[in-house]
Amino acid sequence: MSNTDNSMMVNLERMLRDLDEVNSFSTDFHGNADGITRRSFTDEDTKARSWLVRKLQDVGLEVSVDGFGNVRGLLPGEGKIVVTGSHLDTIPNGGPYDGILGVISALEAIRVIKERNLSVTHPIELVAFTDEEERFMSFLGSYAYTGDLDANLVKTLADSDGIPLQECMHKQGFDPDTATHTSKVDLDRIEAFVELHVEQGPLLEMKGIDIGVVDTVKGNYRYAITIAGKPDHAGFPMEGRSDAFLALHGLLTRILALARVYERSGLLYTVGDVKVFPGLENVVPGKAYCSIDLRVKDGNILTELDRNITSFIEEMMRDGQFTVHTEMILKLDPVPMDERICKAIETSAAEAGITHMRMSSGAGHDAQVLAGHVPTAMIFVPSKDGKSHRPDEYTAPEDIRKGAEVLLRTLFNLAR
Amino acid sequence: MSNTDNSMMVNLERMLRDLDEVNSFSTDFHGNADGITRRSFTDEDTKARSWLVRKLQDVGLEVSVDGFGNVRGLLPGEGKIVVTGSHLDTIPNGGPYDGILGVISALEAIRVIKERNLSVTHPIELVAFTDEEERFMSFLGSYAYTGDLDANLVKTLADSDGIPLQECMHKQGFDPDTATHTSKVDLDRIEAFVELHVEQGPLLEMKGIDIGVVDTVKGNYRYAITIAGKPDHAGFPMEGRSDAFLALHGLLTRILALARVYERSGLLYTVGDVKVFPGLENVVPGKAYCSIDLRVKDGNILTELDRNITSFIEEMMRDGQFTVHTEMILKLDPVPMDERICKAIETSAAEAGITHMRMSSGAGHDAQVLAGHVPTAMIFVPSKDGKSHRPDEYTAPEDIRKGAEVLLRTLFNLAR
Repeated sequence: MSNTDNSMMVNLERMLRDLDEVNSFSTDFHGNADGITRRSFTDEDTKARSWLVRKLQDVGLEVSVDGFGNVRGLLPGEGKIVVTGSHLDTIPNGGPYDGILGVISALEAIRVIKERNLSVTHPIELVAFTDEEERFMSFLGSYAYTGDLDANLVKTLADSDGIPLQECMHKQGFDPDTATHTSKVDLDRIEAFVELHVEQGPLLEMKGIDIGVVDTVKGNYRYAITIAGKPDHAGFPMEGRSDAFLALHGLLTRILALARVYERSGLLYTVGDVKVFPGLENVVPGKAYCSIDLRVKDGNILTELDRNITSFIEEMMRDGQFTVHTEMILKLDPVPMDERICKAIETSAAEAGITHMRMSSGAGHDAQVLAGHVPTAMIFVPSKDGKSHRPDEYTAPEDIRKGAEVLLRTLFNLAR
Repeated sequence: MSNTDNSMMVNLERMLRDLDEVNSFSTDFHGNADGITRRSFTDEDTKARSWLVRKLQDVGLEVSVDGFGNVRGLLPGEGKIVVTGSHLDTIPNGGPYDGILGVISALEAIRVIKERNLSVTHPIELVAFTDEEERFMSFLGSYAYTGDLDANLVKTLADSDGIPLQECMHKQGFDPDTATHTSKVDLDRIEAFVELHVEQGPLLEMKGIDIGVVDTVKGNYRYAITIAGKPDHAGFPMEGRSDAFLALHGLLTRILALARVYERSGLLYTVGDVKVFPGLENVVPGKAYCSIDLRVKDGNILTELDRNITSFIEEMMRDGQFTVHTEMILKLDPVPMDERICKAIETSAAEAGITHMRMSSGAGHDAQVLAGHVPTAMIFVPSKDGKSHRPDEYTAPEDIRKGAEVLLRTLFNLAR
């Protein structure tokens, strides 16, 4: 197949129109209308789902919507299914590409295969997952799809405003009681999963490479640390204080020094939230809180950091001046992608003369849930200035075209 | 005068009854009913003021209430006036001693002098100041009393809920338009000011000393520092980030290292408020804020710290990665008390066999406003465990008695 094989070209204008259409389903979030807000199990989410169902029917696929709203569109064939897709939902005030670009690219790829009667053997399925962006729970849809979801957990989930998942599901016409059992697919029937997604980082742009072949989703450990000391008037002598913020500052200094060492090995570290109580200028903090988010490809580094953080905190506790409450609020070990699927993406990119590089993903994706069960890999397209999860998230049309074309060829190569 | 001179003994039971009565004027604060809440220009404040006016009239003093609600009770005499007192108001959910103990002790001292016909020459005046605890402005009452208050400023002041001072004054029967001009006293007529106050620290208790003779109110510089970087997804590469919290952490590390050096010279330092934005676990902070409160007796240390903080921030700004906005929200240079009045307190304590030590005050007091104009000093009584500005603030009855007795003798000795 040559670089100029027209049958393997996607229709960029049609894709951009699709993107515009689906992004018309957006609302404000707590009064803020910036960017795209399409939270799972809202009216906008339901409209986007209906829109996608119509589009898949137009292509002539066998369309179904499962108990959690995961939309599936099947191009029938023989043997195991090559699955592709991403998620429909966005964070509050997010951008127009995160998630939906993988769905639109999958739609376009299957549409081209169908329209041009490209000769494939395997069935190809598009899937658009629900609630990747954690309105209720990260990867809710993909966990339901793979059967990793606990039916009892579903009853307890609520969004950050305290609205229960069950209530929202009922409102949008879903039955939370049966959803878990009806959404699980037969994983043995899946040949591969390929997800196209925006990079959410600047590497491709910085290096001038067209697409990224994601061979690992970084592991992600996240801590919530609360230190309790004692509040005092800011005129209180230093020797009698148990200043919780000074203690937190000291702890963070140790953790950050260690993190800096592992930065060379690709560690990403973020202290995203810090709070002190009572939080008054003239009161010594009696309590201090921070979150720590650690991401890296090498699971041993996470284990080592965890061991050290635990020991720093134990040391502080032993001293007796402070009580420290540590909660590990996220513990995702690194997820390696499948080498065969990565190679298939690379081969497909090379066929089209599209440059590519291996990379790991710092953000989490539905692909990491699938990767636990079926051969999986990801295609990253550039994000301008690395911006994502914000209204000015941007991927250039030409980059969209290249990404979709690599996806098209990858699906074709895997399904032949 | 001997230690057993009964004429110089205060009536502790009467004082404790007074304290209980005035502390019955307390409300909740935003639904929290802990401790004592008597904010200036509220109904409770007005009730406490009326109560005090009645008490002063009962003693037979010449009572007046000025335009800002400062209550004055004069025991007439010849020559310059010996003034004593403290403030009527509390912080939200404060304790039962801060401020009011100085008022009750002054009441008791003058009451004893009057009742026992102790022979004094000079007039003695009790003053109970309004809004020491910054509902609208720290030391509002004492600034009005000394004439340091700007009439235009009065029009702009509001409390933390945005309620204007003028509105609250009107509501409690005061005229904000004329108050500034009518509240100023003739400072040339004042011989001395003596304020009794709880220590708000643990030194007296730790050292087992009965009272503190405050010879300095520490200088107090306070900063509000905001660093702006750029928000990113927590999966974003480290090299492309401008993490505002990491920048703040680095800046604080430098400032705290320096502060630790000056801790040996009595520096008190407090990072009382810290905030990051957007404050999400998986987002690199685009903005970070902290307050820094510095208190020390030696003004040169404050100058030196200020110079260093400014230069640390300039360095950070030069780098160009962050913008830093620094505001000096408080700049009070150390206030020395009057040596003659300190000695008068010491002599009076010695007469009564009450142990005493020199100390500086880490907290601010009305006395520091008065000290700019008239010979001033303070008497500190112990605070159990150094607790203050909280519901469990406690000064033992025996310590209250000793403090009031030193105040009584000091007033007597100064007014003879």
